[in-house]
Amino acid sequence: MSSNKPTTVELENLSINTIRFLSIDAIQKANSGHPGLPMGAAAFAYILWTRFLKHNPRNPTWFNRDRFILSAGHGSMLLYSLLYLTGYDVSLDQIKQFRQWGSITPGHPERGITPGVEVTTGPLGQGFGNGVGMAMAEASLAARYNQPGHKVIDHYTYGLVSDGDLMEGVSSEAASLAGHLRLGKLIYLFDNNHVTLSAATDLTFTEDVKQRFDAYGWHTQTIDDGNNLEAIDSAIRNAQRNEQQPSLILVRTHLGYGSPNKQDSFEAHGSPLGEDEVILTKQNLAWPLKPAFYIPELALTHFRQAIERGKQIEQEWETEFSSYSQAFPELAEELHQMMRGELPDGWDSEIPAFSPEPKGMATRVASGKVMNAIAPKLPGFIGGSADLDPSTHTALDGKGDFESPRETIDDPQGIVGGGWHYAGINLHFGVREHGMGAILNGLAAHGGSIPFGSTFLIFSDYMRPPMRLAALMGLHVIYVFTHDSIALGEDGPTHQPVEQLLGLRSIPNMIVLRPADANETAAAWRIAIEHNDGPTALVLTRQHLPILDLQKYPQLPLGVISGGYILAHATGKAPADILLIATGSEVHLALEARDKLENQGVRAQVVSLPCWNLFAAQPVEYREAVLPPGIPKLAIEAGVSLGWQPYIGPAIDVVAVDRFGASAPGEIVMREYGFSVDNVTKKAIELLKKHKRNH
Amino acid sequence: MSSNKPTTVELENLSINTIRFLSIDAIQKANSGHPGLPMGAAAFAYILWTRFLKHNPRNPTWFNRDRFILSAGHGSMLLYSLLYLTGYDVSLDQIKQFRQWGSITPGHPERGITPGVEVTTGPLGQGFGNGVGMAMAEASLAARYNQPGHKVIDHYTYGLVSDGDLMEGVSSEAASLAGHLRLGKLIYLFDNNHVTLSAATDLTFTEDVKQRFDAYGWHTQTIDDGNNLEAIDSAIRNAQRNEQQPSLILVRTHLGYGSPNKQDSFEAHGSPLGEDEVILTKQNLAWPLKPAFYIPELALTHFRQAIERGKQIEQEWETEFSSYSQAFPELAEELHQMMRGELPDGWDSEIPAFSPEPKGMATRVASGKVMNAIAPKLPGFIGGSADLDPSTHTALDGKGDFESPRETIDDPQGIVGGGWHYAGINLHFGVREHGMGAILNGLAAHGGSIPFGSTFLIFSDYMRPPMRLAALMGLHVIYVFTHDSIALGEDGPTHQPVEQLLGLRSIPNMIVLRPADANETAAAWRIAIEHNDGPTALVLTRQHLPILDLQKYPQLPLGVISGGYILAHATGKAPADILLIATGSEVHLALEARDKLENQGVRAQVVSLPCWNLFAAQPVEYREAVLPPGIPKLAIEAGVSLGWQPYIGPAIDVVAVDRFGASAPGEIVMREYGFSVDNVTKKAIELLKKHKRNH
Repeated sequence: MSSNKPTTVELENLSINTIRFLSIDAIQKANSGHPGLPMGAAAFAYILWTRFLKHNPRNPTWFNRDRFILSAGHGSMLLYSLLYLTGYDVSLDQIKQFRQWGSITPGHPERGITPGVEVTTGPLGQGFGNGVGMAMAEASLAARYNQPGHKVIDHYTYGLVSDGDLMEGVSSEAASLAGHLRLGKLIYLFDNNHVTLSAATDLTFTEDVKQRFDAYGWHTQTIDDGNNLEAIDSAIRNAQRNEQQPSLILVRTHLGYGSPNKQDSFEAHGSPLGEDEVILTKQNLAWPLKPAFYIPELALTHFRQAIERGKQIEQEWETEFSSYSQAFPELAEELHQMMRGELPDGWDSEIPAFSPEPKGMATRVASGKVMNAIAPKLPGFIGGSADLDPSTHTALDGKGDFESPRETIDDPQGIVGGGWHYAGINLHFGVREHGMGAILNGLAAHGGSIPFGSTFLIFSDYMRPPMRLAALMGLHVIYVFTHDSIALGEDGPTHQPVEQLLGLRSIPNMIVLRPADANETAAAWRIAIEHNDGPTALVLTRQHLPILDLQKYPQLPLGVISGGYILAHATGKAPADILLIATGSEVHLALEARDKLENQGVRAQVVSLPCWNLFAAQPVEYREAVLPPGIPKLAIEAGVSLGWQPYIGPAIDVVAVDRFGASAPGEIVMREYGFSVDNVTKKAIELLKKHKRNH
Repeated sequence: MSSNKPTTVELENLSINTIRFLSIDAIQKANSGHPGLPMGAAAFAYILWTRFLKHNPRNPTWFNRDRFILSAGHGSMLLYSLLYLTGYDVSLDQIKQFRQWGSITPGHPERGITPGVEVTTGPLGQGFGNGVGMAMAEASLAARYNQPGHKVIDHYTYGLVSDGDLMEGVSSEAASLAGHLRLGKLIYLFDNNHVTLSAATDLTFTEDVKQRFDAYGWHTQTIDDGNNLEAIDSAIRNAQRNEQQPSLILVRTHLGYGSPNKQDSFEAHGSPLGEDEVILTKQNLAWPLKPAFYIPELALTHFRQAIERGKQIEQEWETEFSSYSQAFPELAEELHQMMRGELPDGWDSEIPAFSPEPKGMATRVASGKVMNAIAPKLPGFIGGSADLDPSTHTALDGKGDFESPRETIDDPQGIVGGGWHYAGINLHFGVREHGMGAILNGLAAHGGSIPFGSTFLIFSDYMRPPMRLAALMGLHVIYVFTHDSIALGEDGPTHQPVEQLLGLRSIPNMIVLRPADANETAAAWRIAIEHNDGPTALVLTRQHLPILDLQKYPQLPLGVISGGYILAHATGKAPADILLIATGSEVHLALEARDKLENQGVRAQVVSLPCWNLFAAQPVEYREAVLPPGIPKLAIEAGVSLGWQPYIGPAIDVVAVDRFGASAPGEIVMREYGFSVDNVTKKAIELLKKHKRNH
């Protein structure tokens, strides 16, 4: 190879090897990571990123970019290499800080940490589902906003998926739905390397993946040699051409490609190659042994053409959007607001104030009414349930079903979905809670939508992994969980949530609201729509509840926003003899008990505590005004007492983790989070002093 | 139809309609339930139960019975009808008490409540996975205990699965593994009724199910008319004949078959037909309108032949087992003990006592050593990990991989799995945590095995639904969760558990142990093996920890069994100035902090609290001796503070739900669980008195 004027093939190989060795060197320096995937998948990733991906490295949030998802998040160095090489704001120094405290190159890709990372991945199967959500977001916005001659929303969603992704059930759920919905602009490349973290895949995974995806209604292609660049190029082109089906391209790769002793072995999966093997691999692929992090100028220049190209296509799109804005000013303004994630004025103007009525109203029913008051005013609102919308009351009237335009194929009258096609905003997930959770994350991460998903509270257990990721990513996703306690009755213990409410509350950055009536439900929905940097879960009853009279309880709406508030004071002057604290349906029990106690001369105060998280964020003065110390307190909630019950007595402090972790060597993370002898000793002495002051 | 001497066809139709109307009447009386499934599936269920199912209604726990799983648990009345009709100890009175408080006919089938119910189902997809586990249990025991001429373990596992089951990802995971393992004695009938709870299935589910299961390596057959008895008969026979593949029989049925107005509509799915429609349906199928719960004597006699047949086949098996016992007394004794669920003498005799060593030892490594000390002594021990055994240290040395005997087909040397075939006890689940959880439940429910499954603690989120069901069923399942905190380091927040430990602790009837070192790990494994009426989760570190010296801490082994104990007293006489309470890796931090505090004149005591659940079950005297009231306490744990932190101050009580719910009308369940004005008032007054006494 001549270093002055390489042939195209030489330049391509040089570029691909640049990805490989940048990944290898970073992982070796960190002494931690997964080199095998970047080494095996470098070639097809190169083709995708240099020949197809429509993106602007200088503006990673340009709305009409193609989305790329590394579902196999453990291959993070592949993505970081591509980001650095194509000119994102990820420096070589940051690459050298891979997996270190404070770097923007954590162990697995994290949305919000690294420019160009669309979603946080690592837990397998999640990225697969996210991509389906992104493709749905694109289809939805395109159907509603594009106009003849004006394609302002028009991009692909690409993904790199692994055998592990395809083994996880969440990907089966999402794949089945994507096939059903005929999401033609979703294109996944399967890094089919025949090796898992612990073994050859054929120890556990001998299904016919191609046939399985054919069964889901996907377009499938197989590439036998993952380094055959033209085969990859042509397969991606075929996939683009097929507008009626999502595509899976099965690319036979070799884990740890180029490593003389570790290629095709699980040893190349989850550990650095080791200094010696790095040398052997560099020799094998004719790469300079030194310096580490060697970046050939030619390759870098080649990759960095992405910057100019990106600038151009974004400019072209801006021009297009201007012309669209002139032709359709209202649509353009609406879309623009959605892309910015802003709420339109008056989005909540139709939310009802509920008047008491004798029959009362289940909070799930109230929620349905509120949602239908919001939907016409909030164009980004989109969602549905996992086959339970008659029970969860989440259907949006007159808004149509999101369905594929099948009339061209097997549904000539457009009957399925009522003819709305992709313009309908009622999503139907089927009995696929986990897929729903991952898809909601994709919808939210794409931008332009405020997605919600719904099922019974008990089945939130099926979707914990994507809920956690929504919280970790700070995505604006809303969960509507109904049938929230043993009060649902006959369906029995398999359907009665007990520990689920605590389980939701325990997820950092998740707002959990359990409203006590229709009016608290309305207030809860306001929070859910406005709280845009993390998910919100609404926990609602199946059964009727009395409606709290806003004339009698004018403090209710603001009280809900504070997380907790005094709903009913004790008679006479403060302090009360006892506090009754409750959430949701049990608030009414507390109110009744209060009256009975008062009749017996016991002065009881009722606190409604619909949201622990919001309450905990209030100033101590407010919290102590609502829950004064020194007054006995009785909590009432139809869920586990864990969390309510003081476990270790009155004078306490805790060294604990109340936020998400971070990527760095373990001992450093532990120290930074306060798990050091010094910090523990300090806390102990502080506590002791406090205790002595009090006695 | 003549009522005296019906033809075979007449008798069969009469019997099938008996199932239908018994289900309809029970659901109508309860005014709650799912009639559509029993009505549509009655015919094939009838064929399976009367012509194929090898069972003894008078001894539902006969070990070599065929297993039948109603994965679509909402169709519970189908199963209760069959149990009653074939002569199980389920009376007609109990059928009339369907879904009522205290009945043995709860809303969804519950193992342990109703004789003949193999597993608790309802959450969709779980039963599908359970059946795979049962078929694996059968294959494993057969491979290890059957001898030439002696088939003492030899039965089928049948299941009825629904579209909802097949949409859930857990069934995809389990199906892929079942196909890989070629579980030829697993036969599922798919009640393909084209209707879900909320809609026609084609709103969300248009995949080619047959092709999908072909891709998994299943044997598939399609029956166009679910009332064609001979087609059903012949399909089941074909399925039995195929010994190399699990079978899926897609039976086209009609939800709510026979109902003039609700057949094929989702309205027949989740609600009673209604009095009027019941009458119309009875008229339509020529059934007497009165009395309700009409059981034709001829049909009952016909069904009850199962009793005599069952007695006979169990007797034949007993004879066979006797002859086996004479020929292979040791094997027979061993198997007999496993079938009874008893532990062999000395099963724990090789569990090591770990001596301190400078490097220390990760508790995951200690766990691996303990497991390998147990395995040779405990023949029921079987398990593996979800593609992480090099990291979770759960491989059992020299015990072989559980793999299909593929040498007859495509693996002539029997290389895969090292030639152990089904006799290997190392299970490989692939990247399928949810499937693993459901399969473990099947293995445990089958009997004869003590199964364990393993992954990183963070991925316990993927398998919460089956863990909850293990707890609800009281199954002896062991989870080995490693990489238990942010201390795992580089993999970052997607892999660092924060709220998972609390999440496990919150599941009723789940023992959660987080041992502090190798010796606590050994004690924890003793508990896990001996605790046989519910699951146990072992929560283990990735990182090295010091080993606690048993010379210095002789109280450790018994202390772990108590859930918590004083590990290090303060110097001098009690009480200490402060208590440091910790679990797992943080115990060592507490010990270090204690020494530093003591040096500063602060007398600190360290409590190791490896298991909240076991500690909470100790007498109050013990608990207060370990955690004396009135002494300040500092808790240290690398997980959420929720649960540790007193939320509502010192003087409290809680009305809450700390056990699983129950099937009955909601208001009755609420009352029975203490959610009544009277009970709340009573508790409030008690608390107030207590508080006044203290001040």
